[in-house]
Amino acid sequence: MRKNILLTPGPTPLPPQVLEAMARPIIHHRTPQFQAVIKEASDGLKYVYQTSNDVFMLASSGTGAMEAAVINLLSPGDTALTVQAGKFGERWTELCKAFGITAEVVDVEWGKAVDPQEIAKRLKANPKIKAVFTTLCETSTGVATDIAAIGKIVKETPAVLVVDAISGLGAIDLKSDEWSCDAVVSGSQKGLMLPPGLGFISVSLKAMKLVEASKSPRYYFDLRKAKKALDKTDTAFTPAITLIIPLIEVLKMIKEDGLTNIFARHKKMADATKAAMKGLGLELFAPTAPSDVVTAVKVPVGIDGEKLVKTMRDTYGVTIAGGQAELKGKIFRFAHMGFIEEFDIITGVSCLEKVLTQMGYKFSLGAGVKAAEEVFLK
Amino acid sequence: MRKNILLTPGPTPLPPQVLEAMARPIIHHRTPQFQAVIKEASDGLKYVYQTSNDVFMLASSGTGAMEAAVINLLSPGDTALTVQAGKFGERWTELCKAFGITAEVVDVEWGKAVDPQEIAKRLKANPKIKAVFTTLCETSTGVATDIAAIGKIVKETPAVLVVDAISGLGAIDLKSDEWSCDAVVSGSQKGLMLPPGLGFISVSLKAMKLVEASKSPRYYFDLRKAKKALDKTDTAFTPAITLIIPLIEVLKMIKEDGLTNIFARHKKMADATKAAMKGLGLELFAPTAPSDVVTAVKVPVGIDGEKLVKTMRDTYGVTIAGGQAELKGKIFRFAHMGFIEEFDIITGVSCLEKVLTQMGYKFSLGAGVKAAEEVFLK
Repeated sequence: MRKNILLTPGPTPLPPQVLEAMARPIIHHRTPQFQAVIKEASDGLKYVYQTSNDVFMLASSGTGAMEAAVINLLSPGDTALTVQAGKFGERWTELCKAFGITAEVVDVEWGKAVDPQEIAKRLKANPKIKAVFTTLCETSTGVATDIAAIGKIVKETPAVLVVDAISGLGAIDLKSDEWSCDAVVSGSQKGLMLPPGLGFISVSLKAMKLVEASKSPRYYFDLRKAKKALDKTDTAFTPAITLIIPLIEVLKMIKEDGLTNIFARHKKMADATKAAMKGLGLELFAPTAPSDVVTAVKVPVGIDGEKLVKTMRDTYGVTIAGGQAELKGKIFRFAHMGFIEEFDIITGVSCLEKVLTQMGYKFSLGAGVKAAEEVFLK
Repeated sequence: MRKNILLTPGPTPLPPQVLEAMARPIIHHRTPQFQAVIKEASDGLKYVYQTSNDVFMLASSGTGAMEAAVINLLSPGDTALTVQAGKFGERWTELCKAFGITAEVVDVEWGKAVDPQEIAKRLKANPKIKAVFTTLCETSTGVATDIAAIGKIVKETPAVLVVDAISGLGAIDLKSDEWSCDAVVSGSQKGLMLPPGLGFISVSLKAMKLVEASKSPRYYFDLRKAKKALDKTDTAFTPAITLIIPLIEVLKMIKEDGLTNIFARHKKMADATKAAMKGLGLELFAPTAPSDVVTAVKVPVGIDGEKLVKTMRDTYGVTIAGGQAELKGKIFRFAHMGFIEEFDIITGVSCLEKVLTQMGYKFSLGAGVKAAEEVFLK
C-alpha cells in the first residue's frame, strides 16, 4: 500500500492514456493500419520539434539516436566541435572518438552553460569543423543551453548544428527550424511521457547532404535507409510498435495542451522547485542557467546525499535522482518534466522535508512546501 | 466488433500477462528494484537459450543485435562466411559489407536448407574465415537450418558460429552450448511473445575473445560496455524498461511450461498447418526442411496472392504474411509461433478456406480444418 512517485529526469511517469495504449493487442507493422500510425506520429513529431524536416523514429534508446547523428553526418577523419558541460556532453565526445572523428572539446565547468561566443571563436579558429554537437538540457547538471544563440552562429558557417534534446524536447522551447538546428536527437522517456526504447532524429536539408556523403560504416542506424522507408510511410527495420502507438496518444495530448502552455507549466514547476529549495535553505547547483526540466541541488554539509535519495525512494516511494560521475553524493536532481504536475512537486518537496528532518538537517518544517505553494498560486 | 488474430512470424500475439505488465506504472532503471528485474531476466534468458554464457539485452530490434554480432566479432578486412537461403541470410551479407568485412556467401536456393557439408568445404577451402553466420529459421521461406550439424563442423575450426535465432528461439530447439553456438542473436517479438524493441545476444568465451580484439568502431552496440554493465546487473544505456518487465512474465510462463512441451506444441501446430494445406490441395514452398514456426505455402495458380492476404486481414481480421522480395505474391506465410494455439490455427485455416472460396479456388470446403483437427486429436 504505497504510491510510487517518479521525479526523475527520465524515465518520467506514464500517463494513463499511454498505459492503456500499451495494453492493447499488438498489430502488425507492415499493414495499412500501422502506416496510418506512422503518418500520424511523424506529423505530430514535426509539431513538437517545431520543424518541417523529416523526423526519423529508431528502435533504440536516445544514445542510439546520438550515434545515428555522429555516423550519418561525419566520416572518419572529420573534425567536430563538442560542447562538454556534463555527462551527456561527454557522450558526444566519446561517440566521435569511437568512430574516428576528431573531437575538439569546448570544456565547460559543470553547472555552467557554454558561452555561445566561445563556439563562434572555435569555429573561426578551425574552419575544418563540420559539426557542432550540443545538449539542450544537460541532465547531469540541470543546465539549459542557449541553442537559439548558438544556432545564429553556426548557420553562418558550413558546419551543421546538432542538438541532443533527449532531455527537454516537448518540455522546454526548442524551435528547431527557426533556431537553425540541423539535427535534433531525442528519446521517448522524458518530455514525451513514454517508456524508453524510441530514439528520434530530425535532419535538415543541409544535414541530409552530409548523410549522403558520410563514409562512416552504418547499417541499423543508416538514415539513408530510414529516409527511404519513411518516404513510403514505413520503417527500415521492425519498429517498436508498442511505443509508437502510445506516442500518438501523447502527441494528441501535447497538441491539445499546446506547446506554449506546456512550456509555461514546466517553467512554473521549475520556479516552484527552486523556491522550495531556497525555502529549505538549500543551494542550487546551477543557479546561472537552470533548466526548466530538472533542478540540481547541492546536498547540504553533513548530509549523506546517496542515503537521502535512497531513503526517499526505498522508504517512502519518492524517486529523485542522485548525482552522476564526479557529482555522485554531492547533488540531488529533482525532475519536473513530462507527466509531472504541481502536486507531485509538493509531494516530492514534502518527502524531502521529511527525510532531511530525519537525517538531522535543521530548517523550518513546511518552509519548502509553502514556498512552492506561493509560486503555484501566482 | 471484430476480433483480430495475428498469425504472422513476428510480431506474434501478446499474452494477457504481457499486456498487464506493460500497463503498470514505470519504475526507474538505476534502482535496486530494476536490478532484481535484470537479474531475473538474465537468468531466464539463459534457460531459454540453453546456455551458461552471458545473454546481453539491447534496446533495439533484432537487426540491431545482428549488427552487434558483426561489429563486435569482426574487424574491417576480416572474412566471414554467410549462409544465404533467404531475406534474413542476405542481411548477414549486407551487414558484413556495410562494415568492411569480406562476406563469402553460401548461396542456397530459396526454400531449401543449407547442406552443412557445404560449410565444412568452404571452411576448409578458406582458413581465413573467422565467423560463420547462419539463420535458425529463415522466416522468408519457412526453412529450418540444421544448427546442430553446423555446430559440430565449426567447433573444430578457429571460426565462431553465429546464429540468427530471432525467429525460432523459445519455439524450436536450439541447444546453444551443446551445439557449440558462439553467438546467438534474438529479438523479443517472436517466440518470446513480447512486442518488438528488445534485441538479445549470447556470447561464448571463444567469441568474447573476438569481442575484445575487434577493431570495428562501435559504441551503442559495444558488447564490452554491455558486459561491464551486466557484471554489475546493469545496462550500458537506458534499457527498454517496459519490455524487460514483461519479459520476466514471459520467462516465467516458459519455465512453467518447460521447453520440451513448448517445442512439442509448436511441432503439432506446424504439422496441423501442413496437413490443412494438403487438405486444401495447396503445395508447401519448403517441403524438405520446414520449420515448426512458420509454414510457407505456394499461392495456387490463378489466385492473386497479395489480394488473398489483404482480404483475410482487412475484411476478416486474420493477419497472415505474404511473400517478401522475390517471393512477393507467390507464397503466403502462416505462422504458428509464440502465443498462438490450436484454435488460432483452426481460425486461420477456416478464414483461408472462406477467402479462397470467394476468390474462386476449387476445393472441398472444410477439408483444411478437418485435416488440422485430425492432427490435433492425435
